[in-house]
Amino acid sequence: MSVGLSINDLLTPVAVIDEAIMETNIRVAQEYFDRIGRNFRPHIKTHKIPALAALQVAAGARGINCQKVSEAELFAEAGFTDILITFNMLASARLERLKALNAKVDLQVVADNAVVVDGLAACFLSGEPLKVLVECDTGGGRNGVQSPAAALELATLIAGRPGLRFHGLLTYPKPSSEAAVEAFFAETIELLKGAGLDCPVVSHGGSPSLFDSDLVPSATEHRAGTYIFNDRAMVRAGMCDLDDCAMHVLATVVSRPTDTRAVLDAGSKALTSDLLGFADYGLMLDYPDASIVSLSEEHAVVDLTGSERRPEIGERVRIIPNHTCVVSNLFDRLVFHRGGVVTRSEAVAARGRVI
Amino acid sequence: MSVGLSINDLLTPVAVIDEAIMETNIRVAQEYFDRIGRNFRPHIKTHKIPALAALQVAAGARGINCQKVSEAELFAEAGFTDILITFNMLASARLERLKALNAKVDLQVVADNAVVVDGLAACFLSGEPLKVLVECDTGGGRNGVQSPAAALELATLIAGRPGLRFHGLLTYPKPSSEAAVEAFFAETIELLKGAGLDCPVVSHGGSPSLFDSDLVPSATEHRAGTYIFNDRAMVRAGMCDLDDCAMHVLATVVSRPTDTRAVLDAGSKALTSDLLGFADYGLMLDYPDASIVSLSEEHAVVDLTGSERRPEIGERVRIIPNHTCVVSNLFDRLVFHRGGVVTRSEAVAARGRVI
Repeated sequence: MSVGLSINDLLTPVAVIDEAIMETNIRVAQEYFDRIGRNFRPHIKTHKIPALAALQVAAGARGINCQKVSEAELFAEAGFTDILITFNMLASARLERLKALNAKVDLQVVADNAVVVDGLAACFLSGEPLKVLVECDTGGGRNGVQSPAAALELATLIAGRPGLRFHGLLTYPKPSSEAAVEAFFAETIELLKGAGLDCPVVSHGGSPSLFDSDLVPSATEHRAGTYIFNDRAMVRAGMCDLDDCAMHVLATVVSRPTDTRAVLDAGSKALTSDLLGFADYGLMLDYPDASIVSLSEEHAVVDLTGSERRPEIGERVRIIPNHTCVVSNLFDRLVFHRGGVVTRSEAVAARGRVI
Repeated sequence: MSVGLSINDLLTPVAVIDEAIMETNIRVAQEYFDRIGRNFRPHIKTHKIPALAALQVAAGARGINCQKVSEAELFAEAGFTDILITFNMLASARLERLKALNAKVDLQVVADNAVVVDGLAACFLSGEPLKVLVECDTGGGRNGVQSPAAALELATLIAGRPGLRFHGLLTYPKPSSEAAVEAFFAETIELLKGAGLDCPVVSHGGSPSLFDSDLVPSATEHRAGTYIFNDRAMVRAGMCDLDDCAMHVLATVVSRPTDTRAVLDAGSKALTSDLLGFADYGLMLDYPDASIVSLSEEHAVVDLTGSERRPEIGERVRIIPNHTCVVSNLFDRLVFHRGGVVTRSEAVAARGRVI
């Protein structure tokens, strides 16, 4: 409905995406993985929009990565046929949905423990066998088996189950180093070889390690989400510049209660409270020396003490969010533009798909 | 679809609401305001569900409080006729929507500066006059005029505009004290009297000051949202006990990578990153000595070091969120139950209404 409008005429708060920057981000990442000869599997959690995943696949990405079975169902419905779900799945009602999905698309899932493997095995006694990757904790401190020996043990368990296929290894590494990831993978691959187990996929991940993926030569693929839009955390990680951030949250100064305080109409229900280690809640591009010091649900309080220039009431500001993936998830639609002219809007179709 | 099921059979993560606790919360707050002879105007931001606002109004609440015009439109459509929007509103496209709303329901809005008043005045030159409250910063440090003298000045400006009616004062006080609020209100009321300006509404607010509202005798009404469900922050504020928290987020332990680490299937896209001053991301009712130390989008990492009992993979846990209002906003639907048996689910209808 707003196609052809200037983004400056949109009511705020609104999350806008620069199509040209997004296209460049997609192209540059894909070219990097093509160059190092590695599959690239974008994570849809950042946008949750099938039309954007289609751009990623058209650029050369091999398949997509989802985090939840309900997301995968939506993307399968939209025509995607190669889906990896990077989440330990439990509960028979969920596994039945997984099974229906496995009958329809080329599906891979992960496991990092025997309880999950047992659940999958019980559900997949009949029908198309399910490909299972062993998730490895290479220093990230979240999910994952703790050692190459434990990875071998779980791979052996999977391989022994009639309805399951051991299909490889996977990690979400940050904040650990590429060297730690490579050491874990290389040692595990040796152990698997020794046990006679094929390991077709070795999946490395994360936007903050995107262009360092070549430092993990054992990997066969890389997964990443944030890179499509980029954000303040990606700039800090040295993976892009501010100009490479495709998402801006546009907000309006609605109050200037004091000389050093401005209030914006974008709070935690637009920017989220994700700090990701930053001291404030996003970068105000037009006032880089101002600081978004606190959020309530619909207000952002900005401290202008450090900023010589100070915005007036009614002025519109552009914010680069700390973490783009959680911002998309708060909006009904993302609005796209070229040079400030609205080209389209897309429903954040998989928003709320937490199951 | 899940009516009659046990909440223990719902796939996780899911936000469940105990109807009996919610009803008690509604009743107890209303009884308090009836007792002290004050209007009570619930804020719908906490649930964003018309059916729940209907329960609040049926219990005796006078009107509802919305934060955004798009929320107010939804609730007006659902039949609510007395609506206060507590947000400075700018931009002609938004003000036109406000004007349409004002023709339909008994509407009040706020302003804390002349730019907002000028915008409202320009839009409301014709049609039903708009009631405007002056928002006062009584120590909360967000929006609001900074002194009783400034409140009088803005009230005078509003009163002088043909399409606007000065209708009273409003504050969102926390973290300031009731004494500071009362002092600001009392002094302003005297100034308004001296200037011959009627001040029918004096609106105090906040769930963390709910049962201290009698300490602000100048107030004629109180606004609050969180109290309907309560949360960990309300328990800390001494406004309720853990047993009064109607919302639990149910999650499942999906991994136990180490002896002291558990991982749950509820991350920042279910619990949000709101800390509200807490050191961790929610209270695990069944493991009060465990700590949700970090969230990624779909995972919660739990440190079990301090907990003698430790959950097994597949075990379901109940989490009282730090801040219930932002949790509702992440789910498509809230699921209601009595004694653990599902009674209904309701769409979070005004979710995403950020404009």
